[in-house]
Amino acid sequence: MKPKATSTEGRFAYEGLDRVIHERARLSVLTSLITHPKGLTFNELKQFCSLTDGNLSRHLAVLEKSKLVQILKGHDHNRPQTICRITPHGRKRYLDYLETLESVVRDAANVAKEDSTASLASRSLKPART
Amino acid sequence: MKPKATSTEGRFAYEGLDRVIHERARLSVLTSLITHPKGLTFNELKQFCSLTDGNLSRHLAVLEKSKLVQILKGHDHNRPQTICRITPHGRKRYLDYLETLESVVRDAANVAKEDSTASLASRSLKPART
Repeated sequence: MKPKATSTEGRFAYEGLDRVIHERARLSVLTSLITHPKGLTFNELKQFCSLTDGNLSRHLAVLEKSKLVQILKGHDHNRPQTICRITPHGRKRYLDYLETLESVVRDAANVAKEDSTASLASRSLKPART
Repeated sequence: MKPKATSTEGRFAYEGLDRVIHERARLSVLTSLITHPKGLTFNELKQFCSLTDGNLSRHLAVLEKSKLVQILKGHDHNRPQTICRITPHGRKRYLDYLETLESVVRDAANVAKEDSTASLASRSLKPART
């Protein structure tokens, strides 16, 4: 059970999980925006992400500060309208993030599927009630 | 650009991204542990996750409190040794989490691949320097 030095070093560290993107609400906002490259209104985003006005504003501010999204103030039939778009820089950072996310899924899914049939019965630990 | 009411409601909310598991260091710890069902020593975990003693201890405490991991104090050749294991409850919660993570990857990967060839050149936004 000794650590095997360098080969295991950081094997599951997932440094690519960019903290600005990884936060759940922001991941939600960015995934909405990457799937809608023309942009979404503030209200559409609120709906897609099930966020309150305050929460969405707060997270958009973080994303705008990091230059991952662009907020455009415009008008629709004379009513003010806010359009949010992912920037090219945001898209790039999101795609890098996504690569790491895919590696988490791969690492875990292999094992999860392998032992899903054999697992619980053979364990010495008492299953917690769920 | 009007929201399309209920069909889009929460489409990208990803409620299944359990906050206890989603935090990067804890995701790292749990992925290490789910791929090593017999458990890992504290030092092995530290290596796999590239965490400091203090950080690992802090995150293990959170995971233990949520009953996702079990910490066993034992001995190896008369030296004290800490073994960490994912619990059956932790495994279940992790697998639920993983399902949502897979849906994020699916949602984003489709679009990301679709327009990776056509994307940047056609955009009006100025690409940020990276």
